[in-house]
Amino acid sequence: MADENEKGVNRRILTVEFGDCDPARIVFYPNYFRWFDQGTHHLFATAGFPLPQLAGERGLTIPLVGVRADFSGPASWGDEIAVESRIVRWGGKSFDVAHTVTHAQTGAAIAEGSETRVCVAIDPADPKGIKGVPVPGDIRAALGG
Amino acid sequence: MADENEKGVNRRILTVEFGDCDPARIVFYPNYFRWFDQGTHHLFATAGFPLPQLAGERGLTIPLVGVRADFSGPASWGDEIAVESRIVRWGGKSFDVAHTVTHAQTGAAIAEGSETRVCVAIDPADPKGIKGVPVPGDIRAALGG
Amino acid sequence: MADENEKGVNRRILTVEFGDCDPARIVFYPNYFRWFDQGTHHLFATAGFPLPQLAGERGLTIPLVGVRADFSGPASWGDEIAVESRIVRWGGKSFDVAHTVTHAQTGAAIAEGSETRVCVAIDPADPKGIKGVPVPGDIRAALGG
Amino acid sequence: MADENEKGVNRRILTVEFGDCDPARIVFYPNYFRWFDQGTHHLFATAGFPLPQLAGERGLTIPLVGVRADFSGPASWGDEIAVESRIVRWGGKSFDVAHTVTHAQTGAAIAEGSETRVCVAIDPADPKGIKGVPVPGDIRAALGG
Repeated sequence: MADENEKGVNRRILTVEFGDCDPARIVFYPNYFRWFDQGTHHLFATAGFPLPQLAGERGLTIPLVGVRADFSGPASWGDEIAVESRIVRWGGKSFDVAHTVTHAQTGAAIAEGSETRVCVAIDPADPKGIKGVPVPGDIRAALGG
Repeated sequence: MADENEKGVNRRILTVEFGDCDPARIVFYPNYFRWFDQGTHHLFATAGFPLPQLAGERGLTIPLVGVRADFSGPASWGDEIAVESRIVRWGGKSFDVAHTVTHAQTGAAIAEGSETRVCVAIDPADPKGIKGVPVPGDIRAALGG
Repeated sequence: MADENEKGVNRRILTVEFGDCDPARIVFYPNYFRWFDQGTHHLFATAGFPLPQLAGERGLTIPLVGVRADFSGPASWGDEIAVESRIVRWGGKSFDVAHTVTHAQTGAAIAEGSETRVCVAIDPADPKGIKGVPVPGDIRAALGG
Repeated sequence: MADENEKGVNRRILTVEFGDCDPARIVFYPNYFRWFDQGTHHLFATAGFPLPQLAGERGLTIPLVGVRADFSGPASWGDEIAVESRIVRWGGKSFDVAHTVTHAQTGAAIAEGSETRVCVAIDPADPKGIKGVPVPGDIRAALGG
């Protein structure tokens, strides 16, 4: 299991709350994507590039273009889960963030998935436009790329 | 029961979805406040003052300062519910929006509550500041005040 | 565009609410999966097999084992969107539900994705166990399969 | 500020996530009630009476009958907040849980509110019925009452 401080990996322990679960008494599945999104945010913040600062100071955002997940076992009200996020692919202007969710104590698999995001910049010639740009080297290096 | 087009009243019929419910198999209560907030938005939009336009064109927003609700009966997965919203108090710069939630077919009570909101404007002397202002007369009139 | 009553297709028009959106002022992406899940529920209900009844009367549920989505354009606060759901693959014990999200007025694409679900039954020999079973013929027929 | 282990008080530090915020870039207010509900759950769990166990072993639940909140200052994406929950009133069969939300570093107020809950038991004479019962003494004692 990844060390919490391993470069380019973010690991968080969460409790599955009553309100995260549905009448089947397991996690209502859109919540996994809420945790994936949080994982990407925390991954960038931990690497020194919190996304609000990236937007404010460098005019960069990382919108999602695709996402997928597979579910192998349920998580229920009161379970402690580990959400681990890391970048597993660097493209020209896009990258993939992989997320795994496991039971924190046993390591038993719950879900794994990935987000495909693109790095975009405000187009200086068009305040409303955005365009894909390569991920800057310092950010990529800080994230293990 | 209020006519759907009665001035100053917004009535919406919603289906309680699987994902709105918790392991007790009834609506997870924060969702009622999601519906209250939606009710206020639809109330203003129906009266001719959609909130994005109010913000964009007149620099006005209506942040929440307090809210309460009482619950008298449960709503469950698959139920059709009616959410009715109206302004029941006009203060100097604040106002109260009452919301009732009933079973759409029977009218049986589920929840009732109210939001206290203030009308605020961007302070021209301080782009980051906001200050309470009286609700403009045209808006108040359109909402039955 | 599909007729609302076309066999095996469920089409719903939703308003993107203020609270569905994030600080980027577009839909917070996990909400698309909330709408996908709702689409599957409504698809079955419209076909005559509401899921609570399917669970209560026939001991069948349709848990999710995988899901994916691609996003082609944003949806924002106040937009009317159409969510269309249909079953596009029947396996032995699993099936895929495709969901498309478009702007209701223009038909412009927002998102498309699919859920893979399995048909499972409570194991009579083990009240806590579940096992995959073929989708019953009457249900499959009602859903266009 | 309360000690984390003070009897009858639950204190949790949370990060306000991107997805907790709305287009006004502050917490979407129904989320405060999600955190209130979590606070009550954690309060009981920390006192030795996790609610799933209370339901399973003693047939007791604590449904909400009313809730209110006042908001004094905003919380935004990335803020660390402290949610503190304690029981402030014991009635015959009901009790009030007070919740305060502050900025974790500065202690600046964000929101305070309270939930009124009742202690109910499954009616042995009617499996579908529930009835209010006094909060058992051991539970009340563990919660400082």
